Amino acid sequence: MKHDPDFLKSIHFPVPLIDSIRVSRNIRMMAARAEKAGIFFRPHFKTHQSAAIAGLFRKAGVTGITVSSVAMARYFAENNWTDITLAFPFNIRELDELNRLDKLADIHLLADHPDTVNALADGVTKPHNVFIKIDTGYHRSGILWEQKDAILALARRIESAGLLTFTGILTHAGHSYHSSGPEEAAVLFRETIGKMNNVRDFLLHSGISSCKISLGNTPGCSVADSFDGVDEIRPGNFVFYDLMQLSMGICGENDLALALLCPVCGIYPHRNEVVILGGAVHFSKEQLRGKEQKPVFAYAIELTETGFGSLNREICLTGLSQEHGIVQMPAKQIQKTRIGDVLAFVPAHSCLTADLYAAYLTTAGGKISRINSVSARSVQSPALPENNDSVSF
Amino acid sequence: MKHDPDFLKSIHFPVPLIDSIRVSRNIRMMAARAEKAGIFFRPHFKTHQSAAIAGLFRKAGVTGITVSSVAMARYFAENNWTDITLAFPFNIRELDELNRLDKLADIHLLADHPDTVNALADGVTKPHNVFIKIDTGYHRSGILWEQKDAILALARRIESAGLLTFTGILTHAGHSYHSSGPEEAAVLFRETIGKMNNVRDFLLHSGISSCKISLGNTPGCSVADSFDGVDEIRPGNFVFYDLMQLSMGICGENDLALALLCPVCGIYPHRNEVVILGGAVHFSKEQLRGKEQKPVFAYAIELTETGFGSLNREICLTGLSQEHGIVQMPAKQIQKTRIGDVLAFVPAHSCLTADLYAAYLTTAGGKISRINSVSARSVQSPALPENNDSVSF
Repeated sequence: MKHDPDFLKSIHFPVPLIDSIRVSRNIRMMAARAEKAGIFFRPHFKTHQSAAIAGLFRKAGVTGITVSSVAMARYFAENNWTDITLAFPFNIRELDELNRLDKLADIHLLADHPDTVNALADGVTKPHNVFIKIDTGYHRSGILWEQKDAILALARRIESAGLLTFTGILTHAGHSYHSSGPEEAAVLFRETIGKMNNVRDFLLHSGISSCKISLGNTPGCSVADSFDGVDEIRPGNFVFYDLMQLSMGICGENDLALALLCPVCGIYPHRNEVVILGGAVHFSKEQLRGKEQKPVFAYAIELTETGFGSLNREICLTGLSQEHGIVQMPAKQIQKTRIGDVLAFVPAHSCLTADLYAAYLTTAGGKISRINSVSARSVQSPALPENNDSVSF
Repeated sequence: MKHDPDFLKSIHFPVPLIDSIRVSRNIRMMAARAEKAGIFFRPHFKTHQSAAIAGLFRKAGVTGITVSSVAMARYFAENNWTDITLAFPFNIRELDELNRLDKLADIHLLADHPDTVNALADGVTKPHNVFIKIDTGYHRSGILWEQKDAILALARRIESAGLLTFTGILTHAGHSYHSSGPEEAAVLFRETIGKMNNVRDFLLHSGISSCKISLGNTPGCSVADSFDGVDEIRPGNFVFYDLMQLSMGICGENDLALALLCPVCGIYPHRNEVVILGGAVHFSKEQLRGKEQKPVFAYAIELTETGFGSLNREICLTGLSQEHGIVQMPAKQIQKTRIGDVLAFVPAHSCLTADLYAAYLTTAGGKISRINSVSARSVQSPALPENNDSVSF
């Protein structure tokens, strides 16, 4: 970390900073866990959404990835990733854009509804692997794992569509994000593996020729003692981790790899608070609950010569409006704080904070780019009139 | 609203839609309130952040505006707005960028700390009006209104700096966003006016020659029965309103003017839920509390031939992960819903949702642009190495 005035001078407004050493280590650790278990490591790139960070995964041996939107699939396909699972029940309104990616990459798809499969069967222009999304208890998307006949019927429907291949079953045990701790996360992960194998056994006994099992989620993959019965894992958040993972005991303080640099714009000693330029549009409104159930949007983290230092829970981001952040800190810290100081904060949920930027600074002194999500969401059909600001009202 | 297949076909993923008629009406109504009261209407543009919508304000007679970031000031200055109040305790790290705006616009500034005033005094390159931010009870930023000596001292410090002019006192009674209803919001607004006049009287009696009073906030400005003792108002949210304002009784259902169009990607009749492509990155995680204190991120709204129809609280966005939204709806509605349908949702907080897009569709059939906030936040000092993705780790 360059602590010279030139570096600090360059911080004008909230900018995300990643600890280069920690990011590299987090990637190597998870890759090693997968390698040791002999399973395919297909990391979810929705957290970092950066071709440069993707390069670190490539160095760790990763060849296949997971994304959660067609826009992310395009970005990584354009950055030479050719084996991509789009882990969202496919949005059939993006079929044309999917087909435009045909030449760049193999995009593996998810479905949990016959109409999605029918639309794909009618609309794709090259072969695609299709996973069935299974609901193993999170109750967000997927066919309930107990509804094996429905799963089998959908698998057969996929098989009967010429360009589609039924590839396996995929789940995201998102309920593990509410675990009380690593032990419960590990138990949930084992239970999830059990449910998925139960489904696979049924499919294989029913004449389906092969069926991979794909599991997501950072909590389970970070703490599982066994990956027996799993073909691939798709964790994503572990690249940065965050306060949510820390609060569950899934990572340690030294694994936290993303912070937001924010200037101090107001100092209020009578209430032990400062105001930073750093609001809901800079952090997202994701929160933990701290002491007395008060919201915690971020804690401060120390910056050292080599990267991030200790997390400082005494400096807590407790309030967010659109651009303002209210930070509580002890009186002795207030006394040392000056207008224009820059503080670093680890957010509650790194995926959502990172999505609000198009670049990261690194503690190695660089700047790396990532998807500009707002731009990616602003592409419109050419059928719509564009830039007609003068005639639109 | 064009309900023909061509229009619906153009919706591929979440896109914000504004009701042209309602936006125009909301603007005219607030402008008329200010005109009737004989006060200056300086609307906050942080909600829409669009030059095209700004044009509607211009038609309603608006000449001066409010913004909350230097990036917004630049955007509107480049769109020919020359009288701009930057309603944030000035971030002294953006002094150079402020000075770069010298030729484009007059930017009026806020301060509540002597160090901010000193930095401005040393750093600005043309004259600026400076308001003192007053804390009238919200406890976010500002000098407490009771600390009149501190306010006077800061006013004198501003006056003693050659290029700065003490212009007045400014407050944002943000605590009115927690009002139980319009009556309480109106009471709070009256109390705020009283506190501000108390401060002004003290300053004028202490030899300060003039002092404007500037008040923000949509709840108070929407319901106040009198603006006596106020020089200007700076409401912003009223242009779109949202569920938060509706829940407080500040607006009616027919005033809701922003919705997000989201495709249905999953249907789960056994739990009366569908999943839309529309998550935290599309809505923001701002929420209300609904029945049994469950989170409400958005309610559906009907689309008619001419614009928005009725709000439908039976179709409720109750869960958000990064890209997924979980929508509860009655069984009879589930039966009518198909994969690929597009539903329209009014978000809890329109300012935060709108900030996630670079364009709006309008029910008049157009598309209008707005600031790309992610791009605006990605400008970096030339001192930093750029695009060095290969050398940054």
